[in-house]
Amino acid sequence: MDNRPRNTAPRWQLATYRIIFDSDTPAGRAFNVVLLVAIGLSVAAVMLESVQKIRAAYGPYLHAVEWFFTALFIFEYLVRLVVVRRPLAYALSWLGIIDFIAAVPTLAALVLTNSRYLLVIRTLRLLRVFRIFKLGHFMGEGEFIVDALKASRFKITVFLTAVFSLVIVIGTLMYVVEGGHHGFTSIPQSVYWAIGTVTMVGDNDTAPGTVLGQALTALLMILGFGIIAVPTGIVTAQMTQGSSSSMPTYKLARCPRCQAEGHRPEAAFCWRCGEKV
Amino acid sequence: MDNRPRNTAPRWQLATYRIIFDSDTPAGRAFNVVLLVAIGLSVAAVMLESVQKIRAAYGPYLHAVEWFFTALFIFEYLVRLVVVRRPLAYALSWLGIIDFIAAVPTLAALVLTNSRYLLVIRTLRLLRVFRIFKLGHFMGEGEFIVDALKASRFKITVFLTAVFSLVIVIGTLMYVVEGGHHGFTSIPQSVYWAIGTVTMVGDNDTAPGTVLGQALTALLMILGFGIIAVPTGIVTAQMTQGSSSSMPTYKLARCPRCQAEGHRPEAAFCWRCGEKV
Amino acid sequence: MDNRPRNTAPRWQLATYRIIFDSDTPAGRAFNVVLLVAIGLSVAAVMLESVQKIRAAYGPYLHAVEWFFTALFIFEYLVRLVVVRRPLAYALSWLGIIDFIAAVPTLAALVLTNSRYLLVIRTLRLLRVFRIFKLGHFMGEGEFIVDALKASRFKITVFLTAVFSLVIVIGTLMYVVEGGHHGFTSIPQSVYWAIGTVTMVGDNDTAPGTVLGQALTALLMILGFGIIAVPTGIVTAQMTQGSSSSMPTYKLARCPRCQAEGHRPEAAFCWRCGEKV
Amino acid sequence: MDNRPRNTAPRWQLATYRIIFDSDTPAGRAFNVVLLVAIGLSVAAVMLESVQKIRAAYGPYLHAVEWFFTALFIFEYLVRLVVVRRPLAYALSWLGIIDFIAAVPTLAALVLTNSRYLLVIRTLRLLRVFRIFKLGHFMGEGEFIVDALKASRFKITVFLTAVFSLVIVIGTLMYVVEGGHHGFTSIPQSVYWAIGTVTMVGDNDTAPGTVLGQALTALLMILGFGIIAVPTGIVTAQMTQGSSSSMPTYKLARCPRCQAEGHRPEAAFCWRCGEKV
Repeated sequence: MDNRPRNTAPRWQLATYRIIFDSDTPAGRAFNVVLLVAIGLSVAAVMLESVQKIRAAYGPYLHAVEWFFTALFIFEYLVRLVVVRRPLAYALSWLGIIDFIAAVPTLAALVLTNSRYLLVIRTLRLLRVFRIFKLGHFMGEGEFIVDALKASRFKITVFLTAVFSLVIVIGTLMYVVEGGHHGFTSIPQSVYWAIGTVTMVGDNDTAPGTVLGQALTALLMILGFGIIAVPTGIVTAQMTQGSSSSMPTYKLARCPRCQAEGHRPEAAFCWRCGEKV
Repeated sequence: MDNRPRNTAPRWQLATYRIIFDSDTPAGRAFNVVLLVAIGLSVAAVMLESVQKIRAAYGPYLHAVEWFFTALFIFEYLVRLVVVRRPLAYALSWLGIIDFIAAVPTLAALVLTNSRYLLVIRTLRLLRVFRIFKLGHFMGEGEFIVDALKASRFKITVFLTAVFSLVIVIGTLMYVVEGGHHGFTSIPQSVYWAIGTVTMVGDNDTAPGTVLGQALTALLMILGFGIIAVPTGIVTAQMTQGSSSSMPTYKLARCPRCQAEGHRPEAAFCWRCGEKV
Repeated sequence: MDNRPRNTAPRWQLATYRIIFDSDTPAGRAFNVVLLVAIGLSVAAVMLESVQKIRAAYGPYLHAVEWFFTALFIFEYLVRLVVVRRPLAYALSWLGIIDFIAAVPTLAALVLTNSRYLLVIRTLRLLRVFRIFKLGHFMGEGEFIVDALKASRFKITVFLTAVFSLVIVIGTLMYVVEGGHHGFTSIPQSVYWAIGTVTMVGDNDTAPGTVLGQALTALLMILGFGIIAVPTGIVTAQMTQGSSSSMPTYKLARCPRCQAEGHRPEAAFCWRCGEKV
Repeated sequence: MDNRPRNTAPRWQLATYRIIFDSDTPAGRAFNVVLLVAIGLSVAAVMLESVQKIRAAYGPYLHAVEWFFTALFIFEYLVRLVVVRRPLAYALSWLGIIDFIAAVPTLAALVLTNSRYLLVIRTLRLLRVFRIFKLGHFMGEGEFIVDALKASRFKITVFLTAVFSLVIVIGTLMYVVEGGHHGFTSIPQSVYWAIGTVTMVGDNDTAPGTVLGQALTALLMILGFGIIAVPTGIVTAQMTQGSSSSMPTYKLARCPRCQAEGHRPEAAFCWRCGEKV
């Protein structure tokens, strides 16, 4: 979706677009660095403000910083809207929505200070970091990861369903075996414990007290240790395939004259005898 | 094992079969969605009922929900039995047994409420989710995972035996080294701790108190961190091979004259005896 | 090292050898199953005897079981010695040493009951399980794993050295940062904690109390999460290579007549034109 | 950067260079073994000195050991400086800097005993171990690992940024959900907990107390269990590619007429224009 302004647009619009949307000019690169720093500082301010001691000592300063960055991001968002060819298309694109979230709801969060949930929205600004990843080296690499995960999504869904069924069945079993004691006070609680155990995180307050319960736990630990091989295998097989898919596949028909195989998909001439193909 | 009713069967039987066994009609897909929701809700009811507060407040409602779903699954099971060509073949198939478990023993669990172990049977309904996986996109993906694990089963058995030997030997060593203190009260207890440590879950109540015990623990931690590479490597190698099986395998028929194997797919002559193939 | 008795040996020696060393006869397979059960039971007896309650109740019975199995293994060891062609070669082979450990020192452990360390030797009997792995399906699979690990040994040594350097440097840093408090009472203790953290096991009694210490811990956690990719990658790359190395490599010279490539390494005739090569 | 002394240098300089920089002579190999032992002992001395009991009993001896090794490393560093052709080039090379750190600041650490941070510098001596890795078998293996990590650095940066964004957003969410209780006293504290959970280490003092918090935790655990597949997949795909780089790459020179690339290694004609190549 090419959204750069028409060539007939005023020169300032074209110049501004190149700075804030492109990154192949020195000015564009500098803009991106400033943006990255601004995102980092504004999220750091949110985090520090939540620490009681720091809030007591520096609260007003941190608040001022927040106002400053919010104003900056709103201003930037408006400039982006003005500069693109079709503002609506930008506003509804993924990056446009993230830019909007980084700017406007933050304003709401600053005004409605009693709503704690708006805190989370402020940290969503971090997603803007991925805008910068759309540039340069990182573009292809990020796409490589996303593509591998996308291609694996059905396999991972099957795997996750199996894991969920496992933890629900074993969690219920543990609830029954432990008889509601030793922290296994309900099935949801036991399933929560089973998730912690199978994912190798470990739980602190819940531990089986019966021999049968410990045997089941040992089984679950070894299962978790083993089945981590499944998602890893899925993603790795995908990535191994992906990283070798950049090479051409050479699986075309034979040359009609010399019967040679292994032509490039786009070949117009046989590599051995020079015959047209 | 094709079990669809004969073409001469009454029309209602054919139509019902298509809805509850196939999923390529809109009605069949809708049936599967309803089934999935029913499974989810009935398992959620089992789980919520185990939470004391919820049971105190909504017990009768949850019980009613259970009765409703049990009746539904029994009805569905009977319909499946009636509709297939050979009911016995269905009843003894894997999916038939799972459908049976989801329906009939649940009834027993509702009647014999003092038997806690029947709770577990109720959650086995979750296995019916895999019936739905037999459809569409997920079919091949699930098979891909199962095939990779099946092909790795001997390797994984060898690996697990090695891990079990390791945890038993190290567990005994820890029991001796710690002299029965610091939670290492018996060899089974120490082996349980060793399983938790080598699988990187971590144990809460047991921790070595001697220097030698801590050195052994550090060794065991690093071993666990390293040997997780083994099951992962086995499954990944299998999956990588599986996903590249689109490449020609060079495993064609034998030469009619000399019985040699391993010809290229496009070979016109036997590589050993020169016979035309 | 072929150690089967000469054909001129008495018939009972040949027959016994086939039963206890081979496994392709029904008797040999039965012997292996009995051996596996005996190993399992004798190790289970050692483990159960360490549980105070069980020892109090069944101590004498478990002791009798131990004496029985020890006698059995000693008898078996002697039979093996008698039956092979060169007893010394067998006694000094890996499997011979394991068979010896399973038999004779156990006797010592039974006599010198006040020496707890001899307990460990009794569980070393488990290593005999791998004797059974030398048979049938498991042979190749176990070798596959061992070969992959052997081929990776230098890479894994480099990796382990890097991990050890990391945990020693970060452990010292944590000792300094935390100032000897919060469980970081000495450098060895801090290194022990660092090993537990980097291998994702988690420690229970030690937790950083300073902001800098927590930042370092977070870094160490992410490092551990990331560098587990290194041993996994090494072993997986090795296994992927290994599992495809069973296929012939097809990198031979061209056919002198038709210039075709991709012949089997052992091919005597061109697969395309039938020319001798 | 070849820094060996000129052939016209005095014979003692050439001989010393061969001993302390090369390792293909028996003397050179012996020197490396002595160096390895010296590094190990000096780091062990630092570690043991931090244990209060050992310091009380053997403090003066350990201090003497430190002085001895520091003198040794300083002497060795000076010899290295004298022996190479261009001392400055050596002093500014990576290995030269590590050799310097192992020698001179240790002296400072011994003099300024009240500065605890200098303790860390003493353990940096461990980095000298990698000097020895530059030799023999380990050279290529270490490079293999470093190359794979280097080639993956952009992908891993993208992955780490995603993980950091995730833990900050979920950490903030947990802080809000748990309302500052159950150990989630501030956003940084909650983010620290989220890092511990997603990397499967597990935290001891912080545990969610609300149902929503536990649901989020379960999600985070499963996310951690799953996304470990990403770095593992990246590094493994890289290593698999690296180890199979013995296959022909099809990246030959361009066609002299049409500039097309990607010819088969054995191609005799350009695949695009039919020109002889």
